Amino acid sequence: MESPDRTKTPATGAHRGITPEQRAEIDEARAAQSSTRRPTVEAIEEILYEPLPVLDHGFVRVVDYMGDDAAVVQAARVSYGKGTKRQRDDQGLINYLMRNWHTSPFEMCEIKLHVKLPIFVARQWIRHRTANVNEYSARYSILDNEFYIPAPEHIAVQSSTNRQGRGEVLDREEAMRVQEILRNDALRSYAHYEELLNEDAEGNPRDEGRSQVARELARMNLSLNFYTQWYWKTDLHNLTHFLRLRADAHAQYEIRAYADVLTEVLERWTPMTHRAFVNYRLGGQQISKQGMEAIRRMLAGEQVTAKDVGMSAGEWREFQAQLKPTD
Amino acid sequence: MESPDRTKTPATGAHRGITPEQRAEIDEARAAQSSTRRPTVEAIEEILYEPLPVLDHGFVRVVDYMGDDAAVVQAARVSYGKGTKRQRDDQGLINYLMRNWHTSPFEMCEIKLHVKLPIFVARQWIRHRTANVNEYSARYSILDNEFYIPAPEHIAVQSSTNRQGRGEVLDREEAMRVQEILRNDALRSYAHYEELLNEDAEGNPRDEGRSQVARELARMNLSLNFYTQWYWKTDLHNLTHFLRLRADAHAQYEIRAYADVLTEVLERWTPMTHRAFVNYRLGGQQISKQGMEAIRRMLAGEQVTAKDVGMSAGEWREFQAQLKPTD
Amino acid sequence: MESPDRTKTPATGAHRGITPEQRAEIDEARAAQSSTRRPTVEAIEEILYEPLPVLDHGFVRVVDYMGDDAAVVQAARVSYGKGTKRQRDDQGLINYLMRNWHTSPFEMCEIKLHVKLPIFVARQWIRHRTANVNEYSARYSILDNEFYIPAPEHIAVQSSTNRQGRGEVLDREEAMRVQEILRNDALRSYAHYEELLNEDAEGNPRDEGRSQVARELARMNLSLNFYTQWYWKTDLHNLTHFLRLRADAHAQYEIRAYADVLTEVLERWTPMTHRAFVNYRLGGQQISKQGMEAIRRMLAGEQVTAKDVGMSAGEWREFQAQLKPTD
Amino acid sequence: MESPDRTKTPATGAHRGITPEQRAEIDEARAAQSSTRRPTVEAIEEILYEPLPVLDHGFVRVVDYMGDDAAVVQAARVSYGKGTKRQRDDQGLINYLMRNWHTSPFEMCEIKLHVKLPIFVARQWIRHRTANVNEYSARYSILDNEFYIPAPEHIAVQSSTNRQGRGEVLDREEAMRVQEILRNDALRSYAHYEELLNEDAEGNPRDEGRSQVARELARMNLSLNFYTQWYWKTDLHNLTHFLRLRADAHAQYEIRAYADVLTEVLERWTPMTHRAFVNYRLGGQQISKQGMEAIRRMLAGEQVTAKDVGMSAGEWREFQAQLKPTD
Repeated sequence: MESPDRTKTPATGAHRGITPEQRAEIDEARAAQSSTRRPTVEAIEEILYEPLPVLDHGFVRVVDYMGDDAAVVQAARVSYGKGTKRQRDDQGLINYLMRNWHTSPFEMCEIKLHVKLPIFVARQWIRHRTANVNEYSARYSILDNEFYIPAPEHIAVQSSTNRQGRGEVLDREEAMRVQEILRNDALRSYAHYEELLNEDAEGNPRDEGRSQVARELARMNLSLNFYTQWYWKTDLHNLTHFLRLRADAHAQYEIRAYADVLTEVLERWTPMTHRAFVNYRLGGQQISKQGMEAIRRMLAGEQVTAKDVGMSAGEWREFQAQLKPTD
Repeated sequence: MESPDRTKTPATGAHRGITPEQRAEIDEARAAQSSTRRPTVEAIEEILYEPLPVLDHGFVRVVDYMGDDAAVVQAARVSYGKGTKRQRDDQGLINYLMRNWHTSPFEMCEIKLHVKLPIFVARQWIRHRTANVNEYSARYSILDNEFYIPAPEHIAVQSSTNRQGRGEVLDREEAMRVQEILRNDALRSYAHYEELLNEDAEGNPRDEGRSQVARELARMNLSLNFYTQWYWKTDLHNLTHFLRLRADAHAQYEIRAYADVLTEVLERWTPMTHRAFVNYRLGGQQISKQGMEAIRRMLAGEQVTAKDVGMSAGEWREFQAQLKPTD
Repeated sequence: MESPDRTKTPATGAHRGITPEQRAEIDEARAAQSSTRRPTVEAIEEILYEPLPVLDHGFVRVVDYMGDDAAVVQAARVSYGKGTKRQRDDQGLINYLMRNWHTSPFEMCEIKLHVKLPIFVARQWIRHRTANVNEYSARYSILDNEFYIPAPEHIAVQSSTNRQGRGEVLDREEAMRVQEILRNDALRSYAHYEELLNEDAEGNPRDEGRSQVARELARMNLSLNFYTQWYWKTDLHNLTHFLRLRADAHAQYEIRAYADVLTEVLERWTPMTHRAFVNYRLGGQQISKQGMEAIRRMLAGEQVTAKDVGMSAGEWREFQAQLKPTD
Repeated sequence: MESPDRTKTPATGAHRGITPEQRAEIDEARAAQSSTRRPTVEAIEEILYEPLPVLDHGFVRVVDYMGDDAAVVQAARVSYGKGTKRQRDDQGLINYLMRNWHTSPFEMCEIKLHVKLPIFVARQWIRHRTANVNEYSARYSILDNEFYIPAPEHIAVQSSTNRQGRGEVLDREEAMRVQEILRNDALRSYAHYEELLNEDAEGNPRDEGRSQVARELARMNLSLNFYTQWYWKTDLHNLTHFLRLRADAHAQYEIRAYADVLTEVLERWTPMTHRAFVNYRLGGQQISKQGMEAIRRMLAGEQVTAKDVGMSAGEWREFQAQLKPTD
């Protein structure tokens, strides 16, 4: 297998979402090395703790992991050993498990991420319930003045064909007007948030004449593009399930940006599982009973119409799209 | 048992969160009656589909339910019948199950709610993962111009003793200033949201000279006090778990307002389970090993200090609070 | 749509797994009728509480349900009404949800079953974790002398092609020898179980000279073909997930027998969801990226081999099987 | 804190549940060392892969882990660093989280075990659904001739006070008779299992004149005391939840034997969490509202009866037991 592109490895330079103090802590954590009897994955160790940039202020950091492709194989065999020694066998077994929806061996690996993301992305993400989450608490702490402004190439009109999606990109001038609206409202929201909190760096009132409104109240003035952060832990099976839905072309661009980075993390962590995932999930198709009948008849040389196999016009359109090559 | 207070039954009059069309649909749904072999609960049927008002625009509606106290008893006995015939036995068994954390019989009952709630409340609520959720999609649809403004009596300063909580209520003038900030920012956010969408009631551009920005993008300008809505379904065990955490004095007032209404729903639905819940969970205390030792020694006439049982000052303070009468 | 075959409706006569007392209780439960505002499903009401026979002593009983196809549609629309009024639209929406793995609307319906099943079947069944279970306790109670003996037509040799499956059926004489071994060992196990328990119908010792061994100990002498029973509650999405795996030809015959009955229950309960399930899941195929490439090239008139699309021999064999018509 | 008793560390000698081949594989796995940036726990590394004996043929092996006490603290703070540097603070925070049921930080640590256990224990264990499981498949493979025979000191009569429990131990002679029954039936079951399988070490028929019955069928003749094995993975929160229920005096002895070993594993892995768990869960008490009232009144010098606080006789008895010192 080709190794993941090293040029994708994040530069260790400054990212807008990381403070110098955080950078120093990360460097310290990365410098520490321990000895372990556990399986380790070199390509993940390489990026451990390192923020992988996403969007304008966001990131994904792998902060811990457990298991590797061999652990999937081992669980499938419930054996003591490392499975068979030959790589072809392990890849073949992993393909078989993926193909036949034998999901439990993939649940034996776990990954823990630190993610910084806009609140509206967090709200889509959290729907995946089979995961553990610890989110930054705006009841307890004060959110930073960081919010997401989409780049002009991602500001698009409402799709006319897909009721939940984007169509054409706006022209430069209109896009800048959108950015301006979003930025000004976010800045004003944050200024008022700070006014309500009325707190200086030491926690004392900036304005002695006013009260310090409770954090849990003041935060409601912030808009959905402000960044939050969390620890998110899930297993390998549920990670691929998340990626199947969120690295999909129908997912909103902003969450897809995270899913794309996580797909690269998947490739580093469990390259065999990644390959099976690409072949059987991401690049595969679920064909209906009617669709299979159409394919069989077409392969037998028949001309087939939607009506012949009982499909509606919409189903036929989607079926035709499934038959087209993807990227 | 005292029956739930009938005065709590919602008036069928207008609530700010309900449109006349919705009111008509609810009335139609409430008028329909079917015959069923399933167990029914009179006190829930009475409020079925009816919006129970919460906060300034929110509500909770019970839209379906499955099972009752007898179903808990039946599951515990895995028998065909309705358990024993005498009510005292059923209450005794339910108490026993609650006391000993035998949770699975309570999982045999299910309730489905339609809830309208501010986004920041939804974000706390969703952490309870053992439930099913369908939320209104702002990728697909347009959110209404409805946002939460706390009443003056709920606008308070940051607590000085509890880092995530509220202290003293603000004086009237300051509170009105807070309301004004929140209201103005929400109105401006919504006006810009509409400007970005650029859509009239028929979906056509209001301003032909501008594009219609994708809904999934425009929504990011809205603040966290805007209302969303969802269907939320959970089982009786997980409902009580939710209520134990969210009807608690440490929960944020706004989610507690929902938990309080749901506690009344619980009382209507499964009065025996409600009674056990109040006695063993809401009104009970989890006392530590050290605390039990302190109680034993105090009951034996000893003067006991934190040091005697190895508690820190903070633990001792919390322990003392546990010994005080509640409500 | 054709209605479910009424001949499949269980006779109300005696089934070997039901005692006369249980029959009387079921008849009593079936006779009771209440009025409800909830949606009801006529075809399920018809069989409510009724044991549907499976294997030699087992059964499935629907003991409660919540929601119907309209509830799926309603959740998908998060609207007050019953969705659109025209049936074609509802079926189209349900097809769309099933096709695109939008699973959460299907989670809004719930079903509760009482199942009697051999322990080795229960052990496969319980792997489906997204469900609620209350099982008959052999720590607390005494198991009946009921065990599963496969019919001759289900006694087969180990499959030579599929390492977890059956091949040819044994000839009559050999099959009867297998039955004899299973029956004799089960009878002896139960006789010793009773000897250890040493309990008569009143709970007194049968043999005053011996102790009454604890039930939790004595039960370990029973074999895996003894029947147990449980209440099992799950949602519509997880029910179809269960059926996809357990009504499959690769599932063990004995659990498939239960899945087949549950597929009929599904058809009665939510006929639109059943139809989408059959078309998109049961009768559909998940084709890999390589498989889709092969299909595209074959449809373009090319002769394609495993090697051309990078499949192993085993993958190619499975792919060829996918292209063959089912049933 | 006292360190875990080193004498509990398993000898590396032979255990009845481990074959020499397995022993060699374990030794090989233990000999390998890698370098990692992840947090490591010395006391767990020490026992990694090593079978910790339980019952007569069972064991628990820790095969992987993720995180430590510091990871709990880190998640609670959602910070980059390792939390505060002073141990007292970390222990204090962990105590606070445990006391207030803030469970999500404990979900950030994960452990993976290989367990060999009797089937009837596996059936109790599997009820804990928030875990990942891969069990040895008796459809695919052949079970070993290993079954559990309780030691004489664990063979007891049915409890007269607790309907699911044991009372007095049997006298030696009776106990040996029980062992004899269990052993003879297990041996006969296994002999017939082998007869049905009709397979020699190479998979060829032992008796050419007979068929080889499918493994998935033959296994049903085995009794519930035969050993199975699985990989079981769970998070730290759910592990403590499991231990609270299964290390309890009301749990069946055989599963408690596993829970006791796992409590030692917990102490090695996360000593601070272990300490909080012992103080707030294992050694603590959940006192009802009525019980708290009784305690308050007794501390005020009052003589209190069950009737005074509205308890039933059974509730009062349990309450009195809560007030008594435990071990």
